[in-house]
Amino acid sequence: KMGKRVAVVLAGCGVFDGSEIHEASAVLVHLSRGGATVKMFAPNVDQMHVVDHLKGDPTEEKRNVLVESARLARGDIQDLAQLKVDELDAVIFPGGFGVAKNLCDWAVKGKDCSVHNEVESALQAFHSAKKPIGLCCISPVLAAKVISGCEVTVGCDNNDDGRFPDAETAGAIEKLGCKHICKEVTEAHVDEKNKIVTTCAFMCKAPLHEIFDGVGAMVQEVLKLA
Amino acid sequence: KMGKRVAVVLAGCGVFDGSEIHEASAVLVHLSRGGATVKMFAPNVDQMHVVDHLKGDPTEEKRNVLVESARLARGDIQDLAQLKVDELDAVIFPGGFGVAKNLCDWAVKGKDCSVHNEVESALQAFHSAKKPIGLCCISPVLAAKVISGCEVTVGCDNNDDGRFPDAETAGAIEKLGCKHICKEVTEAHVDEKNKIVTTCAFMCKAPLHEIFDGVGAMVQEVLKLA
Repeated sequence: KMGKRVAVVLAGCGVFDGSEIHEASAVLVHLSRGGATVKMFAPNVDQMHVVDHLKGDPTEEKRNVLVESARLARGDIQDLAQLKVDELDAVIFPGGFGVAKNLCDWAVKGKDCSVHNEVESALQAFHSAKKPIGLCCISPVLAAKVISGCEVTVGCDNNDDGRFPDAETAGAIEKLGCKHICKEVTEAHVDEKNKIVTTCAFMCKAPLHEIFDGVGAMVQEVLKLA
Repeated sequence: KMGKRVAVVLAGCGVFDGSEIHEASAVLVHLSRGGATVKMFAPNVDQMHVVDHLKGDPTEEKRNVLVESARLARGDIQDLAQLKVDELDAVIFPGGFGVAKNLCDWAVKGKDCSVHNEVESALQAFHSAKKPIGLCCISPVLAAKVISGCEVTVGCDNNDDGRFPDAETAGAIEKLGCKHICKEVTEAHVDEKNKIVTTCAFMCKAPLHEIFDGVGAMVQEVLKLA
């Protein structure tokens, strides 16, 4: 039995200006355990900026999203422009600020953001082909922006217990005409109609192994739908 | 019951010039599941060089080991010079070429390498205090160089089945007067006398989830000894 062919789309390498490293690694570990064949992709564009992750401040450097994403991929990665939906069974977007900075400009414009054209095309093509789309952390905003009326989770819609400092993201998703579903960090939400699977990951302040398990739940649901 | 306090020492961020990302992430996931309190450290020095992970070639850039390691640590990392062994129960070194380039110069000089003085001091201090030391991938050469006569694994000592392209590392370790123990990728070797725990990780060509499980075996043995 052939393993599922899954695209993983990256946005750089590092939580503050790229893909969140532990989310991306967790996606790959769970896909490996699920017997999937993985192809990694990233857009061949400059990062919005480079953040010194020690100080937390932007630097004057320039880095390329595809080149930095290659660190997560151990070199085995392609330009997102090369992605062919008919050769793939599913697509997964790990989170991290790079998603909101390099794959769209949500970090600057919120719900009025634009989505990178290759990312938008990929999402539309997988959706049209009824192939599943997995997203975690902040990445569900990509689906909310591109696939009208879909259901996603970014965790909780309030920060009453202090675990969801970015809870207002849920409200912004609702304003786009989508439905936000509250879920725990170890859970994934499945929008069966749209084949969209989401989990909140680092949108929740939680121990790393719980985030790892939530990403696992998302990956397993994606593979079931593929 | 208090969780164990474990130092994780990083060497940059990316397999070809820093810490191997998936090994570092796996260490942190398993430490989280084991209830450990983690403190991350890296030396505040320039990387030996920067490798473009897409092309596989060195570039003209300069990057700092501590600043790049902060990507893996989401900013929560300290200068290795600040490490205090009496505040910690164990130390773990993930692998990646950065270990052989930035924590020592094994990549250039093999068994005749020098080990970064802060790395050497940390290894000697944990060893003297009878606190466990965990290492994976190429990192066991640090122990082989600093702790005379210890036992480690870097996988298999031959490449007959094509899974161990760097099998000659085992021979170099033996030439240092240490004992190399052959182990599968999902296994860890425990040198009970020296409290050194090793697993081969990416020294073996294996599916990512098997590497993840081997790192888990190493972390669990370290926590047991701590």
